[in-house]
Amino acid sequence: MHKFKNDLLLEALRGNSLSRPPVWIMRQAGRYLPGYRSLREKYSFFERCENPELSTEITLQPVEEIGVDAAIIFSDILVVPRAMGMEVQLVPQRGPVIPNPIRTENDLKMLSVPDVKDRLHFVFEALRLTKETLNGKVPLIGFAGAPWTLFCYMVQGEGSKTFEVARSFLYQYPQLAHKVLEMIARTTITYLREQIKAGADCIQLFDSWSSVLSPDMFERVSLYYNQRIIEALSEDCPVILFAKGAWFGLEKMCDTGAVALGLDWNIRPETAREMTGNKMTLQGNMDPAKLLTPIPEIKREVTKMIEAFGVENYIVNLGHGILSNTPVDHARAFVDAVKAYHS
Amino acid sequence: MHKFKNDLLLEALRGNSLSRPPVWIMRQAGRYLPGYRSLREKYSFFERCENPELSTEITLQPVEEIGVDAAIIFSDILVVPRAMGMEVQLVPQRGPVIPNPIRTENDLKMLSVPDVKDRLHFVFEALRLTKETLNGKVPLIGFAGAPWTLFCYMVQGEGSKTFEVARSFLYQYPQLAHKVLEMIARTTITYLREQIKAGADCIQLFDSWSSVLSPDMFERVSLYYNQRIIEALSEDCPVILFAKGAWFGLEKMCDTGAVALGLDWNIRPETAREMTGNKMTLQGNMDPAKLLTPIPEIKREVTKMIEAFGVENYIVNLGHGILSNTPVDHARAFVDAVKAYHS
Repeated sequence: MHKFKNDLLLEALRGNSLSRPPVWIMRQAGRYLPGYRSLREKYSFFERCENPELSTEITLQPVEEIGVDAAIIFSDILVVPRAMGMEVQLVPQRGPVIPNPIRTENDLKMLSVPDVKDRLHFVFEALRLTKETLNGKVPLIGFAGAPWTLFCYMVQGEGSKTFEVARSFLYQYPQLAHKVLEMIARTTITYLREQIKAGADCIQLFDSWSSVLSPDMFERVSLYYNQRIIEALSEDCPVILFAKGAWFGLEKMCDTGAVALGLDWNIRPETAREMTGNKMTLQGNMDPAKLLTPIPEIKREVTKMIEAFGVENYIVNLGHGILSNTPVDHARAFVDAVKAYHS
Repeated sequence: MHKFKNDLLLEALRGNSLSRPPVWIMRQAGRYLPGYRSLREKYSFFERCENPELSTEITLQPVEEIGVDAAIIFSDILVVPRAMGMEVQLVPQRGPVIPNPIRTENDLKMLSVPDVKDRLHFVFEALRLTKETLNGKVPLIGFAGAPWTLFCYMVQGEGSKTFEVARSFLYQYPQLAHKVLEMIARTTITYLREQIKAGADCIQLFDSWSSVLSPDMFERVSLYYNQRIIEALSEDCPVILFAKGAWFGLEKMCDTGAVALGLDWNIRPETAREMTGNKMTLQGNMDPAKLLTPIPEIKREVTKMIEAFGVENYIVNLGHGILSNTPVDHARAFVDAVKAYHS
């Protein structure tokens, strides 16, 4: 077995006692880092995702620069719809755009469950190269978007506040919707299995748009597929499930096989502990905008948050991705405050 | 006192026993109605808001067309920032745009607490004219945006998924933020008092973006100002508070003086009843996208929803505004299903 110099994240996922919780940051390999910004000037987004050397370099930056306890492979959840046959563009100021979204039965013809080993080989190469370069320094997190979240983009065709078109499609064509969700789930299972084979020590499943669902629909289109994915992986690898905004599903998510649940900043730590029966590792949940406050305030907030969640069964993180205008020394202060914590 | 032919809404707000709950629909005077669409071709958005005859005509359309149990005055929450000194544009495909948003202390200079009677006279005229034309047919709802929600637009400068700029401003310049919120709250109190004088039978306060706040911040910037506004009005008029996404604040919102709370579709009726201690009138909460399903399905959903909330202390509504692509007969079926309900 691989020896880690720092395996706090995996220990927290196993539920073992620790003197301080591990810390990583969603979108830690991102635009707030000057090193990332300079690569961004030279290479397009998908070039950065599809070139294993670049992806590795970007993945390692926050480990070096701010000292997080885990690396998360630099990639994007939309590589999966691309591999399934959809065109995905990244339009500046607008975000991801899918020029031919799924709107009718006929549109399903463009979709396939691809040979991910071939279509997404660059992700696995990046994982192998990162794993080798890390040489056990910290664990490496792999990830994918949850089927419902990918469905949102594939039907809506772009980002949205409430994904009305995607929700409407779900209500109007439930059978077609489930057909698409099923194809995404199958693709995701093989995709994540290959990530584990390539070196991912744990997996985070991002269900960023579970927040637009009613509790009933959440069970049918988010929970159901997430559980299937997690069950297919959990023997090989711990899975963190982050269903943003799905406070109403926290109790049910405890039974998906996930070993940890991610939380956004809409929920108090005490409430989250209660709703999950104190039996899960929880991850989160500071408002990313709070990283813009002065450093002493950040440190106070981190301490308060650790005390509210408790040191055990806890992974420090933000409640969503770090903002691109976050000063690097503020991100570092967030990490340092966790490292300085003594219970 | 004014005699109503149908005062189901006010009876539900008083907590009186009824054989069926009242029903109205958020954005019921909107784009899904052909009559509205034809006025939209002739007049700009602010022309429609600022011309009392047009505003009255639009307000009455859904009362005639789909038979709702209440009218809600046709206007927009952004008339308040306009009256306070900000320029607000409505850009097609993009929504509201504020070209000079509040970003620094200096930007506060453009703001004032205006003489609303003068600056927003058209709203009061529209209320008077609508009230007169309704002639007691159904009650008339007045409304305003909550200070936090208006602050979001005034700082962000446009709609957003998570209002990062507004949240960041709140964390970085808390004193300035509260100064702005205070000015909005004071303006809103006189604005709503004048609406009541002009004939509003009840008021709905829309806090559409409370969903982006942490529970702590919610108490400080949403709940605090909403409570002050409600306390200033509640002797004269019942207030419905709709803080979208703020499930975590439901318990505290019971003590604001609001007689009813609006709900989005993220929450089960049973959970909402439990969190509010069965002591409030609740309003909501079908996913607007469900109105795109076939009519028999809509009828089944309405019945299920009434049974889950209970006939008493309940106002049927959607969980957010009706979608513009909703067929008119589907909206009518929603209303008819409530009217056909027998407990």
